Amino acid sequence: MFKILDCTLRDGGYYTNWDFDTAQVDTYIQSLNRLPVEYIELGYRSHPMKAYHGKYFYCPVYELERIKKLSNKKLAVILNEKEVSAQNVGDLLQPCSGLVDLVRIAVTPQNLGNSLALAEKIKTVGFEVALNVMYMSKWPQQNNLPTNLKQLDGLADYFYMVDSYGGVYPEDVKQTIAMVREHTLCKIGFHGHNNLELALINTLSAIDNGADIVDATILGMGRGAGNLKTELLLSVLNTKHQLQVDFNALGNAVDCFEPLLQKHQWGTNVPYMISGTNSLPQKDVMDWVTTRLYSFNSIVRALQNQKNNISDNQKCELFKPQKQYSKVLIIGGGPSATSHADAVKQFISRFDDIALVHASSKNSASYKDLDVDQFYCLVGNEGDRLEKAFARAPFNGTCVLPPYPRKMGTYVPPFVSEKAFEVEKVTFTDKVTDSHAALALQTALELKPNEIFIIGYDGYAGGINETQMTLIQENEYLFGEFEKYAGIKLQSLTPTRYKKLNVSSVYTFI
Amino acid sequence: MFKILDCTLRDGGYYTNWDFDTAQVDTYIQSLNRLPVEYIELGYRSHPMKAYHGKYFYCPVYELERIKKLSNKKLAVILNEKEVSAQNVGDLLQPCSGLVDLVRIAVTPQNLGNSLALAEKIKTVGFEVALNVMYMSKWPQQNNLPTNLKQLDGLADYFYMVDSYGGVYPEDVKQTIAMVREHTLCKIGFHGHNNLELALINTLSAIDNGADIVDATILGMGRGAGNLKTELLLSVLNTKHQLQVDFNALGNAVDCFEPLLQKHQWGTNVPYMISGTNSLPQKDVMDWVTTRLYSFNSIVRALQNQKNNISDNQKCELFKPQKQYSKVLIIGGGPSATSHADAVKQFISRFDDIALVHASSKNSASYKDLDVDQFYCLVGNEGDRLEKAFARAPFNGTCVLPPYPRKMGTYVPPFVSEKAFEVEKVTFTDKVTDSHAALALQTALELKPNEIFIIGYDGYAGGINETQMTLIQENEYLFGEFEKYAGIKLQSLTPTRYKKLNVSSVYTFI
Repeated sequence: MFKILDCTLRDGGYYTNWDFDTAQVDTYIQSLNRLPVEYIELGYRSHPMKAYHGKYFYCPVYELERIKKLSNKKLAVILNEKEVSAQNVGDLLQPCSGLVDLVRIAVTPQNLGNSLALAEKIKTVGFEVALNVMYMSKWPQQNNLPTNLKQLDGLADYFYMVDSYGGVYPEDVKQTIAMVREHTLCKIGFHGHNNLELALINTLSAIDNGADIVDATILGMGRGAGNLKTELLLSVLNTKHQLQVDFNALGNAVDCFEPLLQKHQWGTNVPYMISGTNSLPQKDVMDWVTTRLYSFNSIVRALQNQKNNISDNQKCELFKPQKQYSKVLIIGGGPSATSHADAVKQFISRFDDIALVHASSKNSASYKDLDVDQFYCLVGNEGDRLEKAFARAPFNGTCVLPPYPRKMGTYVPPFVSEKAFEVEKVTFTDKVTDSHAALALQTALELKPNEIFIIGYDGYAGGINETQMTLIQENEYLFGEFEKYAGIKLQSLTPTRYKKLNVSSVYTFI
Repeated sequence: MFKILDCTLRDGGYYTNWDFDTAQVDTYIQSLNRLPVEYIELGYRSHPMKAYHGKYFYCPVYELERIKKLSNKKLAVILNEKEVSAQNVGDLLQPCSGLVDLVRIAVTPQNLGNSLALAEKIKTVGFEVALNVMYMSKWPQQNNLPTNLKQLDGLADYFYMVDSYGGVYPEDVKQTIAMVREHTLCKIGFHGHNNLELALINTLSAIDNGADIVDATILGMGRGAGNLKTELLLSVLNTKHQLQVDFNALGNAVDCFEPLLQKHQWGTNVPYMISGTNSLPQKDVMDWVTTRLYSFNSIVRALQNQKNNISDNQKCELFKPQKQYSKVLIIGGGPSATSHADAVKQFISRFDDIALVHASSKNSASYKDLDVDQFYCLVGNEGDRLEKAFARAPFNGTCVLPPYPRKMGTYVPPFVSEKAFEVEKVTFTDKVTDSHAALALQTALELKPNEIFIIGYDGYAGGINETQMTLIQENEYLFGEFEKYAGIKLQSLTPTRYKKLNVSSVYTFI
């Protein structure tokens, strides 16, 4: 009979930064005590890292001891092969002796050979060892895999096939198991991802073809599109293999992660499907999807570029404006740029060499009838926005894009294709080069003004989300760097909460 | 090459009562114009029904005309065989002539024979016809299926296998197609449900085994656990069958249903998984899951009873109290029953033959130290609640359950098993017999009091959800019926918004 390993805390930690509520962990552990699961993987063991990661990224001994008392299951932790060497793995694992039963090593197929010494060292410390070899859909391109597989016998307890991209089919699982079996007698494990909702059927295929252990997580909680759902596997095995399942315990385990699902909303979606079907890396996709900063179509475009192995599919002419302007007015996306539009237009009309730079096209409709030179920054979704704003009006402006290649690809609406240019470089900072403010400031810089005014950078009164908070901090940083670099003060004519802007009122000019 | 039919509006209507925002429908239709889908099924055509169903349950001709102009796809509608006869189908369909291309008939395997005359009549009116035969996982028990299949040739355009329970596996699809093919040359369709996340792999199995048409819906929107997701099918076919997919159009289609997914949260969960693995009807499950009135474990219990083909698995002794009380105090779950507890206890202490009836155990902790007879109603989750309330205190009360059999099964905490009884019947109404108020009032009635007081029925100030609204209306109804039947006024001693209760203040009695 095959075994089941539940790795909800370890894999779910990608959404919570490996912090979980203690009461929640206890309910989870106690519920699993009543379910037919062999191992619980609690998290990583890791050397200190610079970013913040929580309790289950380090699995401190006091927590392992606490859970050991609560649980009647075997406990597992995982290591990243690239961050741990055979030399220092003893320091990391010795303290877990007697608490942890199984140590898993996450390793790329390329590094499988190197990881064998690590596995051997871990065995000597006294643990069971599993090698979780990633990127299964790309194994056919790994020539040295058979050689490495032959060395596993008597060394590792489990050889795991990890469908990192969530893109394999049941038939692939069958064939890969046959291939692995040709070279080693090591027990075989399978860890499936759910990008294409194939985690269950792939896992059943693994079981049917002799896998000895399979992974699952409650509600499928896990990086990106997530994993096979423990509740789905157990429900199916209950009827298919007459496995005894205490559905009350299962229900309690599910209930305790439900609030996290509501909050983080993991699960598959079109970006994850595309990365699954094309074996594309998912770390970026997860960042893009979870910050909700990019439109769905931007993500799809970026993925299509990755799929075609190009960093961007469109190069524009460089933005080298012939004309100079003594004054530039940057127009942000905040509501004040439209609510004060009458005054701002009066202000604009007082100068004969002023240019407008639209950081966002949000307020562009309020200014489209003006007879001055206008520049539109196309970052993120602004191409779509511009298209809508000028659906029924002639477009006489110039479009400016961030430097090539653009991480999320390029969308230039067809009607402005003759009027679209890209800046060569964002010169005043290296840190943030594809934001609205960075591009607007760089565009302003290229127009060589003596004075720069700003409207529509209102800031937020509070009640903001993480994305908005990040944006505020980024903008403050950019305003500061720009003033230092260009020696031009940024003067806001409408109310703003940005501390780095110098504020005056548009009404003092008219 | 097989065809794809998208039935988002038809099947999604189970969540929206077949009303959709017009702008949303237009975006959907326009997005599908750019996608490799052959048919769009818009909804039902139906004779008038007594309950309210919206636009896409009737598909009025003006709407069909409007969509016909917008769409470059073939349009389909569906009929329920049990509600339409060959005699009157002409009235229903004649007006759709020239607008609708395909008419589908949803039919049970038992009624397939009867539906052939209906199919014939629809063909004569000039439509393509599909027979959507339900409950595929139970077909092996249908002896007359082969005979009926033989009659399809030249009559129906498509014979659809519908996995109503979402419980079949790819191998079942393969075998069923082979069986169907033995008896008819009719084109074969497949409609998969996603209870076990097998809709994609089952559909791919259907395609690999020669299916001519398959169904999908955007975001899987559809009854219960939902369907195969159109975006998943197209993403997979894009790499697996080199099908051209405009991912921008697909993204727009998905975006436009995303708010409905947030609102209705369809998709699979443990109750749907259990009904899938055991081929249990899902209408009840959908009601239970969507109202969120029942705990997860109650639903699982009810499903386990259904699976074992019993209406309930526990019969208790009848509640026949020996003692009578001149006064009964019913305690509801509202906060006032605890916030005024001191006064209420003073009130209780004035009488020597008063009994307390806890409609909910929510406030029971505030009264557990009293030396009076107390009765606890066990409806819904109250068993769990009672268990928690008395986890650390002795229990001297009596438990009362609704009449046997109980729709959601029975949970009696072990520590009260000797003290649990069921009422024989709710005598004062036939309509609502398993609610907290109904059981509390019936319990009070059995104690034969002259006066009944109520506390903790506070009502709601507003900002309530549908479940709470239903509860209020139900309670008002029960209070009215009870007073008529029993001739006893219900007197609330704490503030209440219920109109049918007579209100006085607990402070006037002490």
